[in-house]
Amino acid sequence: MQIQIQTFTVHKRFPLTISRGTTAESSNIWVKIQHENIEGWGEASPFSIGEKPQTTAILQQALQQVAPTLEKFTPLDRQQIEQVLIAAQIPSAARAAIDMALHDWMGKKVGLPLWQLWGLERDRIPPISVTIGISTPEAAKQRVRNWLEFIDARVLKVKLGSPEGIAADREMLMAVKEEAPRDALLYVDANGGWNLPDAVKMCDWLATVGVHYVEQPLASVSAIADLPRLYQQSPLPIFVDESCFTSADIPKLANCVHGINIKLMKSGGLTEAMRMVYTAKACGLQVMFGCYSDSCLANTAAAQLAPLADYLDLDSHLNLIDDPFTGAVMNGGRFLPNDLPGLGLGVIPGGVIK
Amino acid sequence: MQIQIQTFTVHKRFPLTISRGTTAESSNIWVKIQHENIEGWGEASPFSIGEKPQTTAILQQALQQVAPTLEKFTPLDRQQIEQVLIAAQIPSAARAAIDMALHDWMGKKVGLPLWQLWGLERDRIPPISVTIGISTPEAAKQRVRNWLEFIDARVLKVKLGSPEGIAADREMLMAVKEEAPRDALLYVDANGGWNLPDAVKMCDWLATVGVHYVEQPLASVSAIADLPRLYQQSPLPIFVDESCFTSADIPKLANCVHGINIKLMKSGGLTEAMRMVYTAKACGLQVMFGCYSDSCLANTAAAQLAPLADYLDLDSHLNLIDDPFTGAVMNGGRFLPNDLPGLGLGVIPGGVIK
Repeated sequence: MQIQIQTFTVHKRFPLTISRGTTAESSNIWVKIQHENIEGWGEASPFSIGEKPQTTAILQQALQQVAPTLEKFTPLDRQQIEQVLIAAQIPSAARAAIDMALHDWMGKKVGLPLWQLWGLERDRIPPISVTIGISTPEAAKQRVRNWLEFIDARVLKVKLGSPEGIAADREMLMAVKEEAPRDALLYVDANGGWNLPDAVKMCDWLATVGVHYVEQPLASVSAIADLPRLYQQSPLPIFVDESCFTSADIPKLANCVHGINIKLMKSGGLTEAMRMVYTAKACGLQVMFGCYSDSCLANTAAAQLAPLADYLDLDSHLNLIDDPFTGAVMNGGRFLPNDLPGLGLGVIPGGVIK
Repeated sequence: MQIQIQTFTVHKRFPLTISRGTTAESSNIWVKIQHENIEGWGEASPFSIGEKPQTTAILQQALQQVAPTLEKFTPLDRQQIEQVLIAAQIPSAARAAIDMALHDWMGKKVGLPLWQLWGLERDRIPPISVTIGISTPEAAKQRVRNWLEFIDARVLKVKLGSPEGIAADREMLMAVKEEAPRDALLYVDANGGWNLPDAVKMCDWLATVGVHYVEQPLASVSAIADLPRLYQQSPLPIFVDESCFTSADIPKLANCVHGINIKLMKSGGLTEAMRMVYTAKACGLQVMFGCYSDSCLANTAAAQLAPLADYLDLDSHLNLIDDPFTGAVMNGGRFLPNDLPGLGLGVIPGGVIK
């Protein structure tokens, strides 16, 4: 098989601020695998949590380095290819792009969408959440109105962990709540922005104002020691994101969280994402699928597995002004994969790919 | 889709004695699913461990009861079908037959063998073990010779836990070892036939005579309390079978065993078997695939997943005089799925199906 790599930059309609900083654009990588006149597509998007930041440059270099090694395989050799990539210490987001492309290729080869090949029920897909970044209360209200202008938003994810402290967090949350539809489900993602005492206080308070669950209240380094204590005290379910990359991280989290956030860029692709779903469920945990600055490509890949999710947070591409890809589509607050074979992807006519 | 159910009886060349009793024949159930002129096949074979025995009559009744409910689905609706079967409390071996048939159908529909659809590497499949039942030392030697007449056996599984006690177990093991090829790997399955003191003694002794691992040394009822103690003391790796049905059983076994024996009849099919593999690996456990009195049909289904196994114990059909099915084939001690679409099954010409 042949592998092509192409970098493209996407720009956010509204720059997104979380506890660690602000993002306005992202340079992602489009991976195309060709074999037997069929093309499979994948995407790598950069992120910087964990031991080593996975920047665009690092991902691009890793993909260019490993591409020649993979030419001897066919796209059906996924078990072997995964082992080669892991042995070569290819970063997870680069592995994710290749794994997505291999799955897209297979679906096209056999003429079925992936969700159907996996025997999944599309009608079971839960609504996606849309994200309100850290901002002033007024800007947060404006952001809610902007979302509601073009999406039937049923779930709002509010980024807290403001550098200005938990008083600012409370003000912003209340502003979002005021502006949100009355039946909307609210949840909070602190991206590790709280210490244990603040997290305990905030979980108590968030429960009283009707928030449904809290994601990554503690930084992943402190979480190891403090999560069990928060788990025992919190009236709200706790999800982790930065503390959980792959299925091997899950068993030790079973007794200190209620759920995990699975992202293709962290897991290294759909294969490991599926392993994570099964391991989490066996451990009695709930699962959410999330994203970084992914375009419609990677979010469409995650949507194929979405009938297995309890919650979905796949809204990054909805905040892009120049997303070049088509794939899964929004329908009544839900992000549904289509009936086309493989991932069901396309390029927007005239879509800017730089 | 339409479902047909047909019972057939297979007879063992050599009746098999384990700690719980002797089996000479088995009446299994052949499930055929028809849709769009494609037929998918599955098999249910009876077994009697766990809370409720799954006899042929019980399995047949469950399949007949649930078949009309499934007619509204297509064979790709596996997620929905699994939930219907679980809600209807259909026994696991009956669910396994349906799940196998759905997978066989899908593979035929798309024109690929399942192992290839799953991206697995057939060359990675480990050799299968062949089983020596509980007997006199002389009969055990004869059984080893019989196996070696028609199979290049690389792994011998010796059934211990004799009602005559561990002195008889020792004699039989030594007889097998004398007769086995020098480079054969030996392991022991006590089928829960020992108490804790005997298990500790036997694990110590078996390690000194070169046995590689021990399966289900303790009864599943006592195992809950005693396994951690045996795990700490045993110089040999411990696998469990009767103590582990599905992925939900695995996390609590993570710190008291080294591996699990996955059987399609216990798990309820290939879907859950795959969940078990992933959960076990995430928990740091090894996996073995095993069987009951399965014909070549169900063992061929398990062989599709075999590139994910550390050990394989899929020899039941090799001890049948009237196995009606063809599928995966023996090749140099390994049981390899073929290149035909789906499970790659056939019926032996003139094969007796009663």
